[in-house]
Amino acid sequence: MASIITLTTDFGLTGTYVAAMKAVILGINPEAKIVDVCHTIAPQAIHQAALAIDSVIDYFPPKTVHVVVVDPGVGTSRKGIGLRTPTAEFVAPDNGVLSYVLSRYIELDNRSQAPFAVEIPKGLEAVHLTKPEFWLPHVSSTFHGRDVFAPVAARLSLGVDPPQMGERVSRLTVLPLPKARKTTNGDLVGKVIDVDSFGNLITNIKARDLPKDTQTLTIEVARHTIRGLVSTYADREGLIALVGSTGRLEIAVKNGSAAAELEAGVGDPVLLRGLNTV
Amino acid sequence: MASIITLTTDFGLTGTYVAAMKAVILGINPEAKIVDVCHTIAPQAIHQAALAIDSVIDYFPPKTVHVVVVDPGVGTSRKGIGLRTPTAEFVAPDNGVLSYVLSRYIELDNRSQAPFAVEIPKGLEAVHLTKPEFWLPHVSSTFHGRDVFAPVAARLSLGVDPPQMGERVSRLTVLPLPKARKTTNGDLVGKVIDVDSFGNLITNIKARDLPKDTQTLTIEVARHTIRGLVSTYADREGLIALVGSTGRLEIAVKNGSAAAELEAGVGDPVLLRGLNTV
Amino acid sequence: MASIITLTTDFGLTGTYVAAMKAVILGINPEAKIVDVCHTIAPQAIHQAALAIDSVIDYFPPKTVHVVVVDPGVGTSRKGIGLRTPTAEFVAPDNGVLSYVLSRYIELDNRSQAPFAVEIPKGLEAVHLTKPEFWLPHVSSTFHGRDVFAPVAARLSLGVDPPQMGERVSRLTVLPLPKARKTTNGDLVGKVIDVDSFGNLITNIKARDLPKDTQTLTIEVARHTIRGLVSTYADREGLIALVGSTGRLEIAVKNGSAAAELEAGVGDPVLLRGLNTV
Repeated sequence: MASIITLTTDFGLTGTYVAAMKAVILGINPEAKIVDVCHTIAPQAIHQAALAIDSVIDYFPPKTVHVVVVDPGVGTSRKGIGLRTPTAEFVAPDNGVLSYVLSRYIELDNRSQAPFAVEIPKGLEAVHLTKPEFWLPHVSSTFHGRDVFAPVAARLSLGVDPPQMGERVSRLTVLPLPKARKTTNGDLVGKVIDVDSFGNLITNIKARDLPKDTQTLTIEVARHTIRGLVSTYADREGLIALVGSTGRLEIAVKNGSAAAELEAGVGDPVLLRGLNTV
Repeated sequence: MASIITLTTDFGLTGTYVAAMKAVILGINPEAKIVDVCHTIAPQAIHQAALAIDSVIDYFPPKTVHVVVVDPGVGTSRKGIGLRTPTAEFVAPDNGVLSYVLSRYIELDNRSQAPFAVEIPKGLEAVHLTKPEFWLPHVSSTFHGRDVFAPVAARLSLGVDPPQMGERVSRLTVLPLPKARKTTNGDLVGKVIDVDSFGNLITNIKARDLPKDTQTLTIEVARHTIRGLVSTYADREGLIALVGSTGRLEIAVKNGSAAAELEAGVGDPVLLRGLNTV
Repeated sequence: MASIITLTTDFGLTGTYVAAMKAVILGINPEAKIVDVCHTIAPQAIHQAALAIDSVIDYFPPKTVHVVVVDPGVGTSRKGIGLRTPTAEFVAPDNGVLSYVLSRYIELDNRSQAPFAVEIPKGLEAVHLTKPEFWLPHVSSTFHGRDVFAPVAARLSLGVDPPQMGERVSRLTVLPLPKARKTTNGDLVGKVIDVDSFGNLITNIKARDLPKDTQTLTIEVARHTIRGLVSTYADREGLIALVGSTGRLEIAVKNGSAAAELEAGVGDPVLLRGLNTV
């Protein structure tokens, strides 16, 4: 029986909103194990939340229920969704917070600057959460995390099937995801998409984009140049580049913060040269 | 069997004091489910703690044990108390942190600027925690959260009756709670009593203080005027007023922080006009 | 069966690294109770982590598994270790994060300014974690907390014996611990080793270093002099000294922050006079 429920929100580390969600979950499934994934998503930062949940799902056991509540459209016509993948279940607003999860199953092109709808890939199923009998009796117009998503997640963890909770849908909203692109001369242009708590700059360049021999690569970021990749943080003094624990190229500073030393952050371009010589 | 124990403290998010309390609880009741309500209560801010615990108790299942440790008088003659209501149990210093909980059962007048004692309402029972056999063997004079309240809460969660743990008392300490008041011309004067992590200003004006038609209301706060209430954060651009998820009038800014934009915070007055036209 | 696992890291309160560790643990031992001890250890601050874990272990039940991940040498030749004491198990890099734990069993002299190796005291056993079959199938070079320490801890909590997981070792790395020392005229010179979330200055002078009558003591810290100890925070207005909840001499300010008011912090000297008159 699935009984782990994770929470990813922009509720911050103060206040009692997270506790209210946990209260609702435990009231419905007293055996649920609730794990906080991240509550410091910037307010309304859907892309950051999409990245956060994607970074951990591989490590949870099958059937884990992941609740993501970054929900600027709460109370409007945006729908709440339940999504079942082969390995997990998700409960979230239909606003793109599951984009990276979906991108594991389909190629998401960047056809638009704005969020757009995609067909749900084969093997996945999604519902719009439309059945109030699975929610709290009184649903506020401002806190569906507590009143809709938490009770739905608790019931999923008890084995209720998503299709019982609403209407099956064939399309979900996704964000245009920032992708690294090849230049005409064979270089790769990516960007910083996250900064971790150590100040490491995490990019949208993945291990699979890299050649086997990474010693001849040159990485340019924030007016600095790094030659070659290392394998771990303590390998070399100063500014380094390496494949981090989420399988992405990272820029780091040994025992320091790359974000602070380079005054760099999310959105900054990262140029990878020397790929074509390999 | 009650087995959820919640923690509300001013211990902050650094340090190991919260973990020490959890250790003690799990040593006595290994099956306890511990939920952090809030640990970012400002140091010694009894009113803030009273509000925080009150904001979540409706969502926890019956018999949940709530521990509130904001305790500037620790080690002095202030008593520790156990309070049983029809739906929950509380463990806290007798300094007013349970004022909002008690105000659900009795009208608390503002007879004083200072904390004062009230008769415990019918249907509730309270004890002063005086029996050391329910505490840790060694009780420090500075950390009753760990040495007294945590072990008492763990034992309550195992079904020990509060009266076994101390002497029944008939009065508890409460704070004067800031209440909205009617002016002679029928307006309502309240104030901001909390700021949530989004910067929403939460007031002491409750949904039940509002007329059915809220479109003709005018809200004045921090030299700004808002006309009419909306139902959710995304309803209108800019500065808005609405009934938030705790049933209180809130001032918010769509995708922004009302606290930052208005430079407003706890204690700021909020004037509600147009009530008498309804 | 041991089933409590605690986590102490420098991962901070943002990001998803802690959640990834919890995911791995629950995937292996779904019944594990995970307790966060502290995640706000300053990056790479091994001494701070050593102090944090030492401050709570007495309060956890026997067989608790404590994981400490402050690991600047991750991916290098530094070993991961499992340590069993008579009351608990520890999983950590062999870099000194268990120094205070070890100092409970042997006298650690300050022979060096740098970390050094000591014989493991009698009654304790330690292994270098060398058996990959107890780790995640893919081990990154940057996040052994998730890939090595979490799965090892989960298996310890299920009853796997440490010697099965690696090679028994006879020496572990420790830090030189800052100790209070007697001056020639009988005074005691210690220093501030931690600052808690209230701003209380916690020193390396222990209750057992103090005379029975503490009224005649004089404490000098940050150009201030305090006469006599009090027993709890509310005993006296202003700057006070007392034995805090971890059994160490603390400098505090009633309803205030000693760290802020004295502009003092970790490393500042504390002079205790008047010991020899007792």
